[in-house]
Amino acid sequence: MSPAGPRERKRPIEHAFDVDEWTVRERGLSLEHLARSESVFALSNGHIGLRGNLDEGEPAGLPGTYLGGFYEKRPLPYAEPGYGFPEAGQTVINATNGKLIRLLVIDEPFDVRYGELHEHERVLDMRAGTLTREVVWTSRTGRAVRVRSVRMVSFAQRAVAAISFEVEPLDGHTRLVLQSELVANEALPGAKSDDPRVSAALAHPLVCKHTSAHELRASMVHVTNESKLWMAAAMDHEIDGPPGTEASSECEEDLGRVTITADGAPVEPIRLTKFIAYGWSSRRSPPALRDQVEGALAEARSTGWDGMLALQRSYLDEVWERADVEIGGDTSLQQAVRFGIFHTVQAGARAEGRGIPAKGLTGSGYDGHAFWDSEIFALPLLTYSTPDAAAAALRWRHTTLPKARERAQQLNLRGAAFPWRTIRGEECSGYWPAGTAAFHVNADVAYATIQYLAACDDEAFERKFGLELLVETARLWRSLGHHDAEGHFRIDGVTGPDEYTAIVDNNVYTNLMAQLNLREACKLVERHPQRAEELGVDPEEAASWRDAAEAMVVPYDEALQVHSQPEGFTSHQRWDFEGTPVDKYPLLLNYPYFDLYRKQVVKQADLVLAMHLRGDYFDLEQKRRNFVYYEPLTVRDSSLSACTQAVMAAEVGFMDLAYDHFTEAARVDLDDLFHNTNAGLHIASLAGAWMAAVAGFGGFRDFGGELSFAPRLPEALSRLAYRLFFRGRRISIDVGPRHAVYSLLDGEPLDVTHHGETITLAEHSPVTRPIPETHPGEAPPPPPGRRPSPAGPDGRPTTEAEHPLSSTVDHPVPGAFRR
Amino acid sequence: MSPAGPRERKRPIEHAFDVDEWTVRERGLSLEHLARSESVFALSNGHIGLRGNLDEGEPAGLPGTYLGGFYEKRPLPYAEPGYGFPEAGQTVINATNGKLIRLLVIDEPFDVRYGELHEHERVLDMRAGTLTREVVWTSRTGRAVRVRSVRMVSFAQRAVAAISFEVEPLDGHTRLVLQSELVANEALPGAKSDDPRVSAALAHPLVCKHTSAHELRASMVHVTNESKLWMAAAMDHEIDGPPGTEASSECEEDLGRVTITADGAPVEPIRLTKFIAYGWSSRRSPPALRDQVEGALAEARSTGWDGMLALQRSYLDEVWERADVEIGGDTSLQQAVRFGIFHTVQAGARAEGRGIPAKGLTGSGYDGHAFWDSEIFALPLLTYSTPDAAAAALRWRHTTLPKARERAQQLNLRGAAFPWRTIRGEECSGYWPAGTAAFHVNADVAYATIQYLAACDDEAFERKFGLELLVETARLWRSLGHHDAEGHFRIDGVTGPDEYTAIVDNNVYTNLMAQLNLREACKLVERHPQRAEELGVDPEEAASWRDAAEAMVVPYDEALQVHSQPEGFTSHQRWDFEGTPVDKYPLLLNYPYFDLYRKQVVKQADLVLAMHLRGDYFDLEQKRRNFVYYEPLTVRDSSLSACTQAVMAAEVGFMDLAYDHFTEAARVDLDDLFHNTNAGLHIASLAGAWMAAVAGFGGFRDFGGELSFAPRLPEALSRLAYRLFFRGRRISIDVGPRHAVYSLLDGEPLDVTHHGETITLAEHSPVTRPIPETHPGEAPPPPPGRRPSPAGPDGRPTTEAEHPLSSTVDHPVPGAFRR
Repeated sequence: MSPAGPRERKRPIEHAFDVDEWTVRERGLSLEHLARSESVFALSNGHIGLRGNLDEGEPAGLPGTYLGGFYEKRPLPYAEPGYGFPEAGQTVINATNGKLIRLLVIDEPFDVRYGELHEHERVLDMRAGTLTREVVWTSRTGRAVRVRSVRMVSFAQRAVAAISFEVEPLDGHTRLVLQSELVANEALPGAKSDDPRVSAALAHPLVCKHTSAHELRASMVHVTNESKLWMAAAMDHEIDGPPGTEASSECEEDLGRVTITADGAPVEPIRLTKFIAYGWSSRRSPPALRDQVEGALAEARSTGWDGMLALQRSYLDEVWERADVEIGGDTSLQQAVRFGIFHTVQAGARAEGRGIPAKGLTGSGYDGHAFWDSEIFALPLLTYSTPDAAAAALRWRHTTLPKARERAQQLNLRGAAFPWRTIRGEECSGYWPAGTAAFHVNADVAYATIQYLAACDDEAFERKFGLELLVETARLWRSLGHHDAEGHFRIDGVTGPDEYTAIVDNNVYTNLMAQLNLREACKLVERHPQRAEELGVDPEEAASWRDAAEAMVVPYDEALQVHSQPEGFTSHQRWDFEGTPVDKYPLLLNYPYFDLYRKQVVKQADLVLAMHLRGDYFDLEQKRRNFVYYEPLTVRDSSLSACTQAVMAAEVGFMDLAYDHFTEAARVDLDDLFHNTNAGLHIASLAGAWMAAVAGFGGFRDFGGELSFAPRLPEALSRLAYRLFFRGRRISIDVGPRHAVYSLLDGEPLDVTHHGETITLAEHSPVTRPIPETHPGEAPPPPPGRRPSPAGPDGRPTTEAEHPLSSTVDHPVPGAFRR
Repeated sequence: MSPAGPRERKRPIEHAFDVDEWTVRERGLSLEHLARSESVFALSNGHIGLRGNLDEGEPAGLPGTYLGGFYEKRPLPYAEPGYGFPEAGQTVINATNGKLIRLLVIDEPFDVRYGELHEHERVLDMRAGTLTREVVWTSRTGRAVRVRSVRMVSFAQRAVAAISFEVEPLDGHTRLVLQSELVANEALPGAKSDDPRVSAALAHPLVCKHTSAHELRASMVHVTNESKLWMAAAMDHEIDGPPGTEASSECEEDLGRVTITADGAPVEPIRLTKFIAYGWSSRRSPPALRDQVEGALAEARSTGWDGMLALQRSYLDEVWERADVEIGGDTSLQQAVRFGIFHTVQAGARAEGRGIPAKGLTGSGYDGHAFWDSEIFALPLLTYSTPDAAAAALRWRHTTLPKARERAQQLNLRGAAFPWRTIRGEECSGYWPAGTAAFHVNADVAYATIQYLAACDDEAFERKFGLELLVETARLWRSLGHHDAEGHFRIDGVTGPDEYTAIVDNNVYTNLMAQLNLREACKLVERHPQRAEELGVDPEEAASWRDAAEAMVVPYDEALQVHSQPEGFTSHQRWDFEGTPVDKYPLLLNYPYFDLYRKQVVKQADLVLAMHLRGDYFDLEQKRRNFVYYEPLTVRDSSLSACTQAVMAAEVGFMDLAYDHFTEAARVDLDDLFHNTNAGLHIASLAGAWMAAVAGFGGFRDFGGELSFAPRLPEALSRLAYRLFFRGRRISIDVGPRHAVYSLLDGEPLDVTHHGETITLAEHSPVTRPIPETHPGEAPPPPPGRRPSPAGPDGRPTTEAEHPLSSTVDHPVPGAFRR
């Protein structure tokens, strides 16, 4: 290990968006970073996702309208095929675009690239749940207009989005034309692949089966070519314009259009309210689908624009009431944490029966796939704040059990093998060492189930879904592992969270998570003997799980007194961090897997994540030794790392380091720290920021329903307050520099611990406790050039130009390069 | 380990070809197995390869005319690309077919599928070096003819093949037309891929740039679309027919044709002698290439058919004089061993500057790639019998050093990283865990170099090629490995020979071969200090190689008292051999890699191969314990296994088992034991049969130029005699049941050992020594259902129909499924 160099200077950073507690505001418009702001300004409710594309459609970084779970199939090619390699992939597609409103000002299209842009401002309001835009623009012929739009994707009315669009002429009477459209099969930039089959599958994914227009309404029904999924989109309008304003509608294949012509006068804006509804199904008939969206439209019109605004705010008021985290002393962090909570809720709130993709519905990155991110990073926030959404996400996994059982069988295993990446449930990973071999996803699903059950005590869920999820994953582990000659239970040849180490024996994270999975499966089987019997579990099988759990191998290097991430890891050569130039990060783009795999270099928290989720297994001293060993090896080439490093740095007492990691996790997209926010937001890191706050400085742990707190603030923060929803109770934790105050806002009394001391919480009786000091010594140095900083893991300023979309939006080439 | 079941019965086997010491004769014609017999009857000199297609072109299993090193580029697709994955592959293509001679019998094409076939016999004569065919056929209109053809690919005139073709009418005067052709871009059966780019690249690989015909000659020049290699083919004829026989020639794109019309009479055959010449180049101009092949034709015509026959036989007389192995007591094994020697010589004799592909030039299997097969399996036979061919093969590797250096650099390594599979030198493996990670290919190249130098004492080669090959591979190992905290030198994250175990630490085979490589590199550097300096080697660097070699880790399981193939292997779960149905072999077609990799199941000799090639490292008792441990784990799903198992079974005393493995290795293609001889012969196994004879029952070893012999026969054999070429000497070893006789046929006296006793060999003084008895106990059982038997590793009879070509000829899909 090289000696730590002088502490690297933090670069001052120019934020792309205004720092504010409740809003994200962009002043001006950077065409260069358009795709990035489209991701940041994406609106979604988990069912519908609208990227923050400009109302007029062009210019665009990446046009995007997504429906949760709606995908097209495409071939997965292999230079050398192998048994069990998935042949078909799934990729999210750009659905019919309903947010398009074009404007002509005396025949000249409103396009910010032409004429003169005097003002341009967009604001994401995280309490209102809206994206507002205000523009003042003069056409090349010299006529100025002010355009105001407000866009929302409704949380309350899941199938509906709405836009209020106003144009106000500033230079006297001005002839205006508004074209409000539904457009299918939009051309996408950079949507090409080396493989012509892939391009063919995705260039024109929707086949038009119905299109109609009538008065101010239009609707369209399409079906995908290969996956045979049906979707319907419809729009309706309200118009408020000067006398003489006229409207007409028309439709053709892939296009529905309502055209409004008006002679606008200054101070008298023309206002258009557009309601858009979406639905899709693999089973319902096209007429039923069309009726469904037109019904949703009718409801939206009846609610009206103001009604929808009010519902949106009241839905979010409740969210913030349960989920808000207040941070004192760092507004930029406050903003970022709320941004993370907001987008996590957007991704999961109304997904209902669909997975939560790694990028939510904010971009097409990673093909729109859901990974373990969902269960390990996104669900904790939802579990402790909006448990219905957490339960829905787990029920989605449950619906995929038949496919997971089939996959297990194909892999010569028992139980269920959940896919590494998927939209519908089928394995879509085209590189098995970092896909299929990452069996920990199964323990991750089990973990989220266990956590949900512990936090929510949902007996019906437990009986109907939880038990089966745990039984089938326990079966997987029992068949995946084996007892060696000394009676130890080994899990060989798998890949843990760290994607720079693959196909290894006894990964500590995997084994400890599998141990928990096996143990909890036993407990549930004991609690539900009859249901267990229906699932074919007899006492012998449950006993074999318990035995395997007890005998689980957890590799430990006695010489170094640290856990070995997998067996043999600590004997491997240390990566030459000193000889690795900063511009060679992320390493996977510049070094072969074979070299990364066989050396001590960690892409993302792995053993360190095990110390968070299975913190009950390690004592504090061991955690500190392990953290000190792994921190200098962890390059954070994945965005699924900093939040966990923040949590564990805080637990072992390295508060400033924890603060830096926290900041990186929270501001990943607002400051585009990975230079690929253009392809969509990093939901895991954003949800992870909540974890860094609550489990990190907030010191919260829940091992088997026993809540413990060990809060402690870094010097930079003056306050941290958060809330938890726990078995019908609401608990508030308010942490200051020297004291923490625990309040039970409602519910039955509860015993918890504060830094090891048991305290009893009861309504109207806040408990205040002092925070003990900690002196852990010098924090370990991150790898050279990889110190967490506001400028991101590679320290490159965020203001630099994005790479062209085709290279960084990993679409339609599947996302091998996962960051 | 399960107890050995009762010894499985050997099935009696019906050979597809007559058993004879010097010929391979097919009586009748099995259209079902046409592709198989085309491989068996392939003729080649290492530069030109002609599959045994029928003269008239149809029906054909797989039409094939190959030129050593002549290939087309094609894309290698990936579902998830990664850094360093090769983007372009190379694939052997079917070159211009010059062996085509069509015959019309009174306007009706001679086609064995129509009319009546009275006799059909083909004979491969391994002393004459010819394929003869004799057919009696009656057309549908009732006219019978006898057709006799003799085909050769000349060893003496490397660019030339020749055919003598005779037709004799049997039913009175019969109008005959012979069309002798050159045809480019023949349609191939089953040449399709899931990937349309691949199909496009290979459907029509040659672009015609010149075609001409004049009198009885025609020539054509083509260039490949992507690889831009030029090839020329030309033909000339001699005709001996009745008066009135007329000939004309013509040409068009992709076709050259000479047409002979004659009125044949019984007993007066019409005889056509066809000379064909081939050449290709990436650099020579089209006119130069054309001149080159027409010059070769002129030489062939001047030699004449009888002269070429005589040259062919005299070339082969010399081969047999140096390389023959005589076996008493088993004619089928005698035939098979000679078949193996013959085809190995055909593959390598005149390759001169090109690699020796895994299938020689007998089929398009594995895309025509050369693997480590060449150095470890094919070269030993050539080194000790036709050293010039061995030196040429190593010089070919040397020509690829610039590409290997580039690849090493790309992989973050020093020195040279030779490709796992290639035609021209670039890595063409599309699955890195069983490709790039198999770094042992570098030690294999070094091993063959060391063996050649020890056997041939070729000072010029050593200085010019050998030193550089060893230095660059030593550099690779030094940068690939590292010293751990205890000072041991580890080589982590690589794949050894066993393709059912990948990406492991400290594979014994790899480490021991690397150790030899490092040591011998040091020695050569000491012997050639000035040349070493030119290569940039200083004493420090050489010392670092010696240190690494001395500190090399060799994993050993103290509890089991056996070597662990790689680290951790012996702790892995044993494959459920008992629960694996026979029809699930080869396992790689029925189980995922992840499952194979993490269990104790061995595709092919790995540790056991280490015990052969680095036999100096192990004592006999250790070898026996290791063999007994690994034999029941080794399923022989690869044809690169039985020969090595034969060698080691013989050394440790399990003579009957050795005999069974020997038989499987030798008869792999004559009896189509792997059911894929249709795609080409298994040159490694065929050459391995020589090894099984010479190193197995012959007991021959050469460690650093010290020859030792420990011969011993199984009960089934009465005699084994073989010869070795060693440093200018010819040595004959004649082994009987109780004695072995050593004779130095010419050269300086030499000390060798016989079962440990030193004896001195001198001309005219044969030494006779008794063979000590051995009592090793019960032989270990191979895995259930995988006992080596004349019916092959899976015991399925060979007479069953082949799979359709498209599924078993792994062309143009690259050969992931390597057997």
